Amino acid sequence: MTTDGPIKIESKGVAQEFLDSFDTFLFDCDGVLWLGTHLLPSIRETLELLNKLGKQLVFVTNNSTKSRASYCKKFASFGISVTEDQIFTSGYASAVYARDFLKLEPGRDKVWVFGESGISEELGLMGYECLGGTDPRLDEPFDHKSSPFLVDGLDPAVRCVVAGLDTKINYHRLAVSLQYLQQGEKVHFVGTNVDSTFPQKGFIFPGAGSCIASLACSSGRTPTYCGKPNMNMLNTIVSAKKLDRSRCCMVGDRLNTDIRFGVEGKLGGTLLVLTGIETEERALEVTQEHPRPRFYAEKLGDVYELTR
Amino acid sequence: MTTDGPIKIESKGVAQEFLDSFDTFLFDCDGVLWLGTHLLPSIRETLELLNKLGKQLVFVTNNSTKSRASYCKKFASFGISVTEDQIFTSGYASAVYARDFLKLEPGRDKVWVFGESGISEELGLMGYECLGGTDPRLDEPFDHKSSPFLVDGLDPAVRCVVAGLDTKINYHRLAVSLQYLQQGEKVHFVGTNVDSTFPQKGFIFPGAGSCIASLACSSGRTPTYCGKPNMNMLNTIVSAKKLDRSRCCMVGDRLNTDIRFGVEGKLGGTLLVLTGIETEERALEVTQEHPRPRFYAEKLGDVYELTR
Repeated sequence: MTTDGPIKIESKGVAQEFLDSFDTFLFDCDGVLWLGTHLLPSIRETLELLNKLGKQLVFVTNNSTKSRASYCKKFASFGISVTEDQIFTSGYASAVYARDFLKLEPGRDKVWVFGESGISEELGLMGYECLGGTDPRLDEPFDHKSSPFLVDGLDPAVRCVVAGLDTKINYHRLAVSLQYLQQGEKVHFVGTNVDSTFPQKGFIFPGAGSCIASLACSSGRTPTYCGKPNMNMLNTIVSAKKLDRSRCCMVGDRLNTDIRFGVEGKLGGTLLVLTGIETEERALEVTQEHPRPRFYAEKLGDVYELTR
Repeated sequence: MTTDGPIKIESKGVAQEFLDSFDTFLFDCDGVLWLGTHLLPSIRETLELLNKLGKQLVFVTNNSTKSRASYCKKFASFGISVTEDQIFTSGYASAVYARDFLKLEPGRDKVWVFGESGISEELGLMGYECLGGTDPRLDEPFDHKSSPFLVDGLDPAVRCVVAGLDTKINYHRLAVSLQYLQQGEKVHFVGTNVDSTFPQKGFIFPGAGSCIASLACSSGRTPTYCGKPNMNMLNTIVSAKKLDRSRCCMVGDRLNTDIRFGVEGKLGGTLLVLTGIETEERALEVTQEHPRPRFYAEKLGDVYELTR
């Protein structure tokens, strides 16, 4: 660690130095551990190595479509054992924000969800009644005279709209969400994450940010975002896990979300892996556009392969 | 016309002066002539009076969901006879923009439509093949492996995405539109109109602008807007009708679109009617937020009622 630029993990010595520098590793998932349903090389072995070394592992994803319980199943499908309390999704971070920051009261305050089950499941576990979300009545074409969400008026107990990626986005969902957002300050506006796109299988599809953008435009309101790189997410993790930031390393495949998250969160270090959307050239670039990582590697599995 | 402030049409003299000042009247429709399916008082009589006086009447709407032909039918349903060439919708203005400014060539260049039939019908009349739009295959849930719009690759003949209000907005439409927008400069990005909301029956629903905002966010691109208050719309009308701007009056119910349109387009005058979303207080307000109208009236029908 004698240079200021990013250090490439490509020798046993550097890999060992990397392992020794941190007690806790925070991992982005897609692009780091797997690509969609395809586990990347030596991931299982790397995570086993870290566990053996007594490191704490935390998994941090901006994907709000799945709950933490669903993520556990996904890990299990790859033969990796992970417990729910190791997983932080942007949907969970949004629920924590609603509970701890907005102080919504379970049993009294309700939440209108624009998004998939990963949001309402987490809110439900905290005791909040959720409206909207995956309710199949929202799949029906919108008619304000017959929408079951409008005919009897809005639910006055709704105190918050939580919005995220919704692949079932439609005019019915947008129109009713807007009615709640028009209630003004009484109803808070929370966005799971700002990512405008959602890379998948070589395509770039619309992300949470571009679903939320529509609501932000129609309502004229700006949501509070809870996912990476927003510090709401990191504060949630640090406080839940009682972490010493200087001994934490954020591992990710995106400079502008993952690496920024680690740098702005003043974590001890960051590792960029090149199995996602970034290149070595971008990793080494000196620019105002994005922060530079402390370490970078062709793939996360190199940490295991170089030290075995 | 001795004061600088807006003049209220509330006497026979002022109404007569208003009529004498202009040869051509440009009317916004919803909120001016009708509210949804309800014709406002004395509208038929006012339009008949203007016709008798030899005035030219032009109807200008930001609603892109209906074609000019559909608007003719709507006028006819109120017993008002209007020809297609008197009507300018934002969908038609977008088609004119694609033809006259982007110089798209019918038979060779195609257009991907995100929006309702009012856009593709107008483009079709000009000879452009449209993809997307109301194609019922886009109503199916999105799967990039089976979407008929992606399995064989994008259509290389598509040179433009025209986007407007789409009450059938869904992830399939957003995702495929985004693939075309990702082609960069080769594929132009045109938005029908910027209105973020769509007032209807006492509700405020999402408008074209908030549908387009989602595509703008995911693509990182800014569309060219063709509807009011953009001058593309006015230039289209002025050139089609060979108008003398100094003898034209824009009549509308919104300060920020209709009245701005008339003022920035350097028309001879503007008339704000209070049957839509504005109040007398707003009409008289001196502010940087919106321009002031030259004339205002409780309702357009007052022009007839005061002079009969």
